[in-house]
Amino acid sequence: MNHSKMTEILRLKSPADFIGRQGNGVISFGSGQPDLPPPQEAFQGIDLKRDLRYGLIQGEVKLRESLAREYPGSTAGNFVITNGASEALDLIFRGWSKGEKVLLPRPYYYSYPPIIELAGMVPVYTDLVDGRIDLDDFKKKIKDCRAVLINSPSNPTGRVEAIETLKEIEKITQKLGIYVVSDEVYKDLIYERENYHINGDHVITVNSFSKTYCMCGVRVGYLWSSDKKVVENICEMKTHTSMNTNLVGQDMALSAMRAPKEYITKQQQIWRQRRDYIYKGLVDLGFDLWKPEGAFYVLPKCKNAREFLSVLYNDFKVITYLGEWFGAPDRIRLSYALDISQIEEGLGRIRQAMQKVTVL
Amino acid sequence: MNHSKMTEILRLKSPADFIGRQGNGVISFGSGQPDLPPPQEAFQGIDLKRDLRYGLIQGEVKLRESLAREYPGSTAGNFVITNGASEALDLIFRGWSKGEKVLLPRPYYYSYPPIIELAGMVPVYTDLVDGRIDLDDFKKKIKDCRAVLINSPSNPTGRVEAIETLKEIEKITQKLGIYVVSDEVYKDLIYERENYHINGDHVITVNSFSKTYCMCGVRVGYLWSSDKKVVENICEMKTHTSMNTNLVGQDMALSAMRAPKEYITKQQQIWRQRRDYIYKGLVDLGFDLWKPEGAFYVLPKCKNAREFLSVLYNDFKVITYLGEWFGAPDRIRLSYALDISQIEEGLGRIRQAMQKVTVL
Repeated sequence: MNHSKMTEILRLKSPADFIGRQGNGVISFGSGQPDLPPPQEAFQGIDLKRDLRYGLIQGEVKLRESLAREYPGSTAGNFVITNGASEALDLIFRGWSKGEKVLLPRPYYYSYPPIIELAGMVPVYTDLVDGRIDLDDFKKKIKDCRAVLINSPSNPTGRVEAIETLKEIEKITQKLGIYVVSDEVYKDLIYERENYHINGDHVITVNSFSKTYCMCGVRVGYLWSSDKKVVENICEMKTHTSMNTNLVGQDMALSAMRAPKEYITKQQQIWRQRRDYIYKGLVDLGFDLWKPEGAFYVLPKCKNAREFLSVLYNDFKVITYLGEWFGAPDRIRLSYALDISQIEEGLGRIRQAMQKVTVL
Repeated sequence: MNHSKMTEILRLKSPADFIGRQGNGVISFGSGQPDLPPPQEAFQGIDLKRDLRYGLIQGEVKLRESLAREYPGSTAGNFVITNGASEALDLIFRGWSKGEKVLLPRPYYYSYPPIIELAGMVPVYTDLVDGRIDLDDFKKKIKDCRAVLINSPSNPTGRVEAIETLKEIEKITQKLGIYVVSDEVYKDLIYERENYHINGDHVITVNSFSKTYCMCGVRVGYLWSSDKKVVENICEMKTHTSMNTNLVGQDMALSAMRAPKEYITKQQQIWRQRRDYIYKGLVDLGFDLWKPEGAFYVLPKCKNAREFLSVLYNDFKVITYLGEWFGAPDRIRLSYALDISQIEEGLGRIRQAMQKVTVL
């Protein structure tokens, strides 16, 4: 094995470092984004020659009105449109006091701890049990936190929390007056049931057009809160830190929302087929993993994960991510945002790489 | 006068609160953005159906290569494309340590103190003398700072620092190893001379397509640094806080750069005419103000500024901004991003309002 190449790949510190490493026969199980195209509606009626002066910091009224129809009892005033879900999360935590604690189920999306720490807050962890929140541990640790950040369906576990768990979290946090930040960017990618919008006056929901409408690079997300003070405080910060979210992107998001419901259900079918294919494939290879119920990630256990990652990349041109980036050492993360044919080819290469590294 | 309306207008805390208050006979000297259209080139060749998956965090290569041709000795690696100059500034200060000081010439752009404070840093001020940096005071105060943030041409003063002053700042800060953050978003709107790019390995330049190409709402800005570690650190943060800058906006920015030089010189002519008109008009009304040499703002002295602002808005439908938002109490800020005919009408209303409030 080429040692300098191995060093290079292990020097990469986060998934973002892999952007642009596809092509040339590489099979990437890395990228956390749909490979499918946006709906045709996203492009229809977009007028680039619209008024391109500053827009409202809170976001375009029509887009927020359209979102309000998806959130029962809401108005346009409950939303702030942001540069993707990332900026929504960043602004939410920056609005709280430095030194306060945020509870984080582990494994977590790799940006969560840095976002919390950049805001000067302190992440504390509750370890998932069989990929799900352990309410006993949750109850113990939530008490001295300002907020909890949950993500269902979850990147990187693919797990969806039971509705009873989500309702229990609503109740516990409501009673204690602790905020729930609910990152629901995969809400339209659940295979088992409809999404359950966690709700209440202490809930801040984060969402995005990226995954539902396959437009990650357009960077349009949003947050919802029933607390007008939260909305005002976030708009005040955003006035200084980025101003309005890009207007053409907001127009495209609004247009995309006109896509028929079948666009989403057809996507779900495709994702379910891929999920079934990769899950069976990895089980057949002997991996121990949770069956995804949403999103498009699997997180199998994997001994010698760093070495396996290097061998896969350098000798077999297969990109996977280290579980440790997501707080899950001894696991690797695979995204199945790939054609079945590519998943098949990738699984074949993984089978070969398993001859070189002990992973089970 | 309607007291509740007066209360309303004085409750507004920052210029951003005025967005959307135009129309219906209102003359707005408020908005800090061009009223002119973007160049036709900005719309040419834009393909919305491009690859809309995540782009590079640092920004599109072609756009950065195009910028590099404007910065002698630079490569694409020296730039990070951001959601406007605002995000560039925000990320720069977040990259430094909490509690460190940042020197800020006063009057300042209204977002500077909040951006510095949000990053946990501490603004310290050097008061301008006749609208220009006082190098003696600058030298005294810079010593225990991590950085200085300068803005030439300046919003809100309209002043352009002399090239000798900028070179002196280069020298002083280089010697002390202190960073200069140079916000040059009005670089193409100087009436007196070419822009002087302040330079050096401790300089971080912030810039934008917003003012030069009249596309504020598209939110594409950038930063330049010769220090690869600064660039890497900022990309690392942006990976978590917003990911890539919106791709369609970056395409529009690249296309806009193809506009002929005459687009910019023609704009400068228009701004110069307006500057001459409003400057003479305000002097004739008896106001004491600096003559703008760049950007599109005047900052006349004004007694009873809060009352005058209310009377102007409520009784005469004229929007102006309080100097105190920019660290300049007893002044008001007027933007002249308006047709001459509107400036004329606005000045007439100001003359009438001066009958009601003592401002000189």
